[in-house]
Amino acid sequence: MRVETLAIVGVGLLGGSIALAARRRRAAARVVGVDASRAALDHALGRALVDAVAGLPEAAAAADFVVVCTPVDCIASQILAAAPACNPGCLLTDVGSTKAEIVRAVEGCLPPGVAYVGSHPLAGSEKHGPEHADAALFERRQVIVTPTPRTDPTSLDRVSSFWEALGATVRVMDPEEHDRALALTSHLPHLVASALAAVLPPELAPLTATGFRDTTRLAASSPALWSAILQANRAAVLEALARYGERLADFRAALEANDRAALEALLARGKQVKDSLADR
Amino acid sequence: MRVETLAIVGVGLLGGSIALAARRRRAAARVVGVDASRAALDHALGRALVDAVAGLPEAAAAADFVVVCTPVDCIASQILAAAPACNPGCLLTDVGSTKAEIVRAVEGCLPPGVAYVGSHPLAGSEKHGPEHADAALFERRQVIVTPTPRTDPTSLDRVSSFWEALGATVRVMDPEEHDRALALTSHLPHLVASALAAVLPPELAPLTATGFRDTTRLAASSPALWSAILQANRAAVLEALARYGERLADFRAALEANDRAALEALLARGKQVKDSLADR
Repeated sequence: MRVETLAIVGVGLLGGSIALAARRRRAAARVVGVDASRAALDHALGRALVDAVAGLPEAAAAADFVVVCTPVDCIASQILAAAPACNPGCLLTDVGSTKAEIVRAVEGCLPPGVAYVGSHPLAGSEKHGPEHADAALFERRQVIVTPTPRTDPTSLDRVSSFWEALGATVRVMDPEEHDRALALTSHLPHLVASALAAVLPPELAPLTATGFRDTTRLAASSPALWSAILQANRAAVLEALARYGERLADFRAALEANDRAALEALLARGKQVKDSLADR
Repeated sequence: MRVETLAIVGVGLLGGSIALAARRRRAAARVVGVDASRAALDHALGRALVDAVAGLPEAAAAADFVVVCTPVDCIASQILAAAPACNPGCLLTDVGSTKAEIVRAVEGCLPPGVAYVGSHPLAGSEKHGPEHADAALFERRQVIVTPTPRTDPTSLDRVSSFWEALGATVRVMDPEEHDRALALTSHLPHLVASALAAVLPPELAPLTATGFRDTTRLAASSPALWSAILQANRAAVLEALARYGERLADFRAALEANDRAALEALLARGKQVKDSLADR
């Protein structure tokens, strides 16, 4: 079941990539872009990421499928703002890096016939803006879709089919389970990278090599976007941070004790996990 | 002044790359390899990384330039084992990731006419073994050379010229200053990456994406090599770890206080440092 009119709310890196992929792969007959930034809309039109641009209610009224791609702290309010304009049968989703708070805010608040299912594509970049839009961004990537017991199976199927049409594979998870998992696999790494970058005195910058660069790559991400993500998932991020702190304390104890065997065992544990990821 | 006979002690990733680069760039007329591993020597001969292989005293007796490329906890003893066999005028260096402990152990213990100056190429990989040897490994990379007040200027010039002949740029630093700097730019990132990899439960491995992969790249490094490096630089690594721990504590406090502005300011500080590295 192809989408007729796809509305993309927030035409940045992710929104622009969804628009481009949907057009290239003919997953939608028509794509309408919505953005608070006139420059982003001009870019989206100029690069033919979208067929047209519109305000939120107009786009929602015209669409049978809406993807909200704004920062996580704006997503719920934009879904709730779009929904009253939607026609029955319209399905909304989003690409937020956290899910539980958004799902809680939206569920039970939509007009009859209008549905919402949360999504989170495990794709992206420390870059942002529609100029980095990439039609291949979702190919062979996972998209986590987070239904609840109240989600109807048809909506779940439609959302899953949409992402599959963009080349992604879909994994279904409970919203809270998603947030606990992503705290460890994504949110903690951002925090770790940022804290590591911040301890570098400027005069040592010329002595950094590829190791420092790669370990801190995520520190280049947008502070506005990521402070919202960390805040939206603060309980799970605090728990992940506590687990990480225990590992660092193990390293500290081994160093203080000058215990070579303990250091090697700790590094071997990290290597074992890392090597297990190699073929994925 | 070209090297006549270059002896490489430890023909792994770094030793093999030095051998290959020296031959390709004609920085040495002849290269002799020394290694405890027969397989490594066979590989080095088979791939023509070296002209010949020999035991440590024979190679030292034949060489006018010796580079010790073994794990940091073996370097000082191998320099001290090689030196008595060296002819006057022979110069020894190494590629260890820590410098102060090695320099202290060697200085004042060499026969007359035999000199040592420490080196540390900021090049390498989480891979190891001569099969990854790369003649271009040092091109446009920095090599830190660590003389002391007792180092004679001619030896410092010879070591610097050798690395420059392999395509590297040379930076001169005091050994203790080197170790404090590298604790932050290299040793702490290894520890951070390893601790992060270790907190990932196996069932979440399928949910990792490029962010987790890059942040933990260094966790694939050899636990044996890196436990020796961390141990050899434990005071400076503990200090770096303490500074990093303070940054993490700032994040924890901001999350506990649900303080969006504080989170954003912390992330902005990391981004500022990271962005300053972008053009290097």
